[in-house]
Amino acid sequence: MTSSLTEYASRERDRYLAELQDFLRIPSISTSSEHKSDVLRAAEWLADALRQAGLEHVEIFRTEGHPIVYGDWLHAPGKPTALIYGHYDVQPADPLEEWNAPPFEPTIRDGKIYARGATDDKSQLFLHVKTVEAFLKTGGQFPVNVKFCLEGEEEIASPNLPRFLESHADMLRADLVVISDGTMLGKDTPSICVSLRGLCGFELEVQGASTDLHSGMYGGGVANPLTALVRLLATMHREDGSVAVEGFYDKVDPLDEEKRKAFRSIPFDEEAVKRQLGVPELTGEAGYTFLERTTARPTLELHGIVGGYQGEGTKTVIPSKAVAKLTCRLVDRQDPEEIMQLIERHVKRHTPPGVTVKLHPRDKGKPFSISPEHPYIQAAAKAYEAVYGKPPVYIRSGGSIPIVETFSSVLGAPVVLIDLGLPGENLHAPNEHFHLEQLDKGIATLCHFWRVLS
Amino acid sequence: MTSSLTEYASRERDRYLAELQDFLRIPSISTSSEHKSDVLRAAEWLADALRQAGLEHVEIFRTEGHPIVYGDWLHAPGKPTALIYGHYDVQPADPLEEWNAPPFEPTIRDGKIYARGATDDKSQLFLHVKTVEAFLKTGGQFPVNVKFCLEGEEEIASPNLPRFLESHADMLRADLVVISDGTMLGKDTPSICVSLRGLCGFELEVQGASTDLHSGMYGGGVANPLTALVRLLATMHREDGSVAVEGFYDKVDPLDEEKRKAFRSIPFDEEAVKRQLGVPELTGEAGYTFLERTTARPTLELHGIVGGYQGEGTKTVIPSKAVAKLTCRLVDRQDPEEIMQLIERHVKRHTPPGVTVKLHPRDKGKPFSISPEHPYIQAAAKAYEAVYGKPPVYIRSGGSIPIVETFSSVLGAPVVLIDLGLPGENLHAPNEHFHLEQLDKGIATLCHFWRVLS
Repeated sequence: MTSSLTEYASRERDRYLAELQDFLRIPSISTSSEHKSDVLRAAEWLADALRQAGLEHVEIFRTEGHPIVYGDWLHAPGKPTALIYGHYDVQPADPLEEWNAPPFEPTIRDGKIYARGATDDKSQLFLHVKTVEAFLKTGGQFPVNVKFCLEGEEEIASPNLPRFLESHADMLRADLVVISDGTMLGKDTPSICVSLRGLCGFELEVQGASTDLHSGMYGGGVANPLTALVRLLATMHREDGSVAVEGFYDKVDPLDEEKRKAFRSIPFDEEAVKRQLGVPELTGEAGYTFLERTTARPTLELHGIVGGYQGEGTKTVIPSKAVAKLTCRLVDRQDPEEIMQLIERHVKRHTPPGVTVKLHPRDKGKPFSISPEHPYIQAAAKAYEAVYGKPPVYIRSGGSIPIVETFSSVLGAPVVLIDLGLPGENLHAPNEHFHLEQLDKGIATLCHFWRVLS
Repeated sequence: MTSSLTEYASRERDRYLAELQDFLRIPSISTSSEHKSDVLRAAEWLADALRQAGLEHVEIFRTEGHPIVYGDWLHAPGKPTALIYGHYDVQPADPLEEWNAPPFEPTIRDGKIYARGATDDKSQLFLHVKTVEAFLKTGGQFPVNVKFCLEGEEEIASPNLPRFLESHADMLRADLVVISDGTMLGKDTPSICVSLRGLCGFELEVQGASTDLHSGMYGGGVANPLTALVRLLATMHREDGSVAVEGFYDKVDPLDEEKRKAFRSIPFDEEAVKRQLGVPELTGEAGYTFLERTTARPTLELHGIVGGYQGEGTKTVIPSKAVAKLTCRLVDRQDPEEIMQLIERHVKRHTPPGVTVKLHPRDKGKPFSISPEHPYIQAAAKAYEAVYGKPPVYIRSGGSIPIVETFSSVLGAPVVLIDLGLPGENLHAPNEHFHLEQLDKGIATLCHFWRVLS
């Protein structure tokens, strides 16, 4: 990083931190309709930040859901054009009682900033804006042409972004897409994610009697939708931890020796993870390591069951209805639409008597992968090496950014994931945080990346 | 009923109705600590009603939980002494959105009064108070000696009543216990319940990682407590609908031909129940009828699962903890303590890997039964016949009033259940109500009962 950029970034650091806290203070929870105006407020805050950074054509595009913020700087003729994607919406903050400080009152402790959205994805997005700002405020030039496309619906699976990408393809056209919305392998171990799992979410709604019933009067004589749901859900995994939906693994490539060797080369301590999570053992699909299970193998996970009584004490109710919320993570050539059909068939075959079951498809996204040899990936690798002193490890991530696959297929541009989060930052959980050292190292890494790319 | 009683009751009917509405307006939800003062308010309201009826020694006894209201009238020397039990606490009212009118704003529609607690048990309890009032206000005399013992913890399984009964055994001593807290077989079909199922409630708490996890990062690599709970719960029933806990049926008497014949003699239309409930079929333990399943056979029912995300939209969380709320209904010689031990053994055997499971015992009560030939039961039979024009059917109820068995064993007195509710009154469900014709017929039946008993 040239000294002028370094000087600018360190001179402005306090302001950066204050601005980031302002951004984190906005409870932009996209899944909750009561926070709609907060999500809009975050979009407006971002548009202002883009303008302040020196970007042009800054505009808030309305969608049927939450808006998309756009801005560009296109004065580097002959250089590549990069589209930076990020999301300014956040996950719900519950369970609130498990936070050490309110999730939307950012607090700094032990070199970390705590708030919902701290690592996912507000800080990482913020670093991109500030990197562009540093270039434009110091030299008046950015090394490449750059466009920002920032959305407010990532946490609800980006229902409106694909249509926006298609209808604004000219405006968004780029040679590469850059996204920072993930986690490095370790504090001193930079990594580049070259594969993401896909997502296929759904709800199973089990309907019993037309009204809630008293278990004393009706217990034993009518199907209990919760019990029926539990029985149905229990058919979805085998004893060995694998998914029991017929055909589920048909488009999953076997882990050959070369891939397994690559996995073994990644520094990873299963015992440490076990201790960190406080679990008696790490379980999952038999025959695979933790890293393989969480990145290269597909899953089916249950996130919550609605219905009956969740309050204090006992209520002897047989609920009229019970709903389960689930998602599958997909890999390789698994397609969310096809998986949904397999699950529908499975549900039909395993519906217990006395109830009706409806399947409601929810979020979906295809798996994604890119070759580590790709020149843009190599540019990112050089940037990490310059800042962290060693080349990055190439990893597969277990998470899903469905939009990555969408960018890749709709815009036809390779996607480069430059993760700047650190492990253990509690994304989607209470006490989410972001390490402040990554504020500095992150901007440095991005500055290098743009220079190498140029 | 003598004409003076008839005249009094019909002259005072409007006042009765207004008073009942006042009583129903108090949200005396015993399971919810935030309603503690409302439960106390209901106790105070009742104490006033007892005094107004002419009862003596009216007193509110504090317990470690909600209070017990006592009152007596003991001026019938040589006559039996009856203890009337009832409960002034109610179930929670959720889901609130399914009520046609607010649950604690009693409304009268189509000859029914709608409110939480309308049939379970406030109206039925109220009828007893007003019957005593009618006798004392018209003739100054009650046919027998009478004591009221009214509690505010029935819906949470009466944790403090057994100790109260033991420590106040002298005060409460009686020749019989009378309880109206149930449902007649039909509007024109009086019935006497001679058997109640016991109860054995518990919670299963499944602990996984020490914090909520993101299913993208950890999905597939660590046990999901919700999935583990679902798998554990699914082991508790067999395919044929029976309970799979080893030893569960050991103390259940087989339904011999005589008992089955008695069941067949009860007028009951399974098709009508199916239509009323809106279910595709009535399911349950194979080899038994609906009536047998819901009254003479034990059950294990799931009432709710806590953990993960129950809100709007999706949250891809692997929760740290999941809790299931369950109760068993018990029959014959099944003992709740023994059943709890069997379940504990079952849980230990079937705990999935990667989690720890804790079993928390909750409400419990033994099953109860009395012979239809008992003279007090026959007195109730004559009273019903006088008002409804036909003798009652003797039935077994599927519900549990654990305290019935406690009264029976602690006070050593037979318990007579004079149910005054009607079927379909939605107890424990939205739009609970009580038929107003039962206000009149109920008082008439009770007046006859006390006279016959005398």
